[in-house]
Amino acid sequence: MNKEHISKQFDADLEEARTRVLQMGGFVEEQIERAIEALTTGNEELIDQVIEYDHRVNAMEVSIDEICSQIIVRRQPTAVDLRMIVMIIKTITDLERIGDEAQKIARMARLIYTNDRLQIPRFTEIKHVASIAMDMVKKALDSFARLDPNSASKIVRQDEFVDEEFRSIMRHLITFMMEDPRKISTSIEILFIAKAIERIGDHAKNMSEYVVYMVKGKDVRHVSLEEMEKEIQK
Amino acid sequence: MNKEHISKQFDADLEEARTRVLQMGGFVEEQIERAIEALTTGNEELIDQVIEYDHRVNAMEVSIDEICSQIIVRRQPTAVDLRMIVMIIKTITDLERIGDEAQKIARMARLIYTNDRLQIPRFTEIKHVASIAMDMVKKALDSFARLDPNSASKIVRQDEFVDEEFRSIMRHLITFMMEDPRKISTSIEILFIAKAIERIGDHAKNMSEYVVYMVKGKDVRHVSLEEMEKEIQK
Repeated sequence: MNKEHISKQFDADLEEARTRVLQMGGFVEEQIERAIEALTTGNEELIDQVIEYDHRVNAMEVSIDEICSQIIVRRQPTAVDLRMIVMIIKTITDLERIGDEAQKIARMARLIYTNDRLQIPRFTEIKHVASIAMDMVKKALDSFARLDPNSASKIVRQDEFVDEEFRSIMRHLITFMMEDPRKISTSIEILFIAKAIERIGDHAKNMSEYVVYMVKGKDVRHVSLEEMEKEIQK
Repeated sequence: MNKEHISKQFDADLEEARTRVLQMGGFVEEQIERAIEALTTGNEELIDQVIEYDHRVNAMEVSIDEICSQIIVRRQPTAVDLRMIVMIIKTITDLERIGDEAQKIARMARLIYTNDRLQIPRFTEIKHVASIAMDMVKKALDSFARLDPNSASKIVRQDEFVDEEFRSIMRHLITFMMEDPRKISTSIEILFIAKAIERIGDHAKNMSEYVVYMVKGKDVRHVSLEEMEKEIQK
């Protein structure tokens, strides 16, 4: 086997792994959408579906991990190719955890509707912040697909907004609970839903940072937004 | 270089990586202890320390990731050795996130003491569940150090207990808030502390599952406790 042949085979393997990540990402996006839809409508079938489908997300992670290990063993990739594979292994860990958060939202939706509490406090805000978190996941996956690190700093900014929104929802819920202690249980459930959405944002941010690492070779996890922007513009 | 030489060099590299993981693990254990101590005493210096030291945990993760990538590129490990490296990469992701949870506990401790609320509800339960979560992290690290998968099923059982304790603390806090709405803010902070501890348990569980994967070659993430025990006993 000549060098070119090995490299072509490697490219094909890598393409397969990347395609699988994007499929997993698409499925996870649908899980979030379904969870928010279930929360809006209280549709029991949909709630069950989100909870049940989480197994599929988990299976996808295990199977892509396996593909990556096989690529490393068979193709013995060098520095830059290896960076791509490490990025894939990290990305799917975050995607799997986004799936967990979608499942948690569905479980909370079930609790809320089982108890027949149709008036959900801060629901407009929840839907708004959920739409931003979904946009972050979408951007992170696009940026992974195109190996384009430029959206990373946008995602970091959105993450700051989502964190701020979470704190604001929490403050409002506390006031709401104080005014009417009978609403405490529902408010706590809503608070955990807001927390799950905030976590989805964190995971999308992690994913976008792996793309920067992949393309720029520079690890931007745990650095400030300013430093990250400097790295991207280099 | 002959084969034996390569293999010895690989073993030395791997040993270095494993030692670093255990150092990181030890430091993360201290972070949890400090956070719980800070929560107990309200010691401001300790609170600041936990928050500030989180940077070190992050730096350790980035540096061990780098070591692992270098090992793969230089030594081109085969199946079983590679599994060890993938296990290390996944383990440090969980350790880093345990560090984040310790930092969150310290931040909540600051909020609680800034507002001079010296009576912390459900504090005995919090300390008890924290001690179990710490024991889980310790067991997971021991099991990593000795490549011994046998404690994995014990850790999974402890995780179920921690989850149940979390739900019980939450129920009690809701009652407490209903009885005295002025306690709502503090109760929410305590709720998030309980949640952080519950997450630490989840991460310890993940870590113990990687050891099973490493030793048994079988992925036990996302399987039932019974299935996992069957795998370990094989």
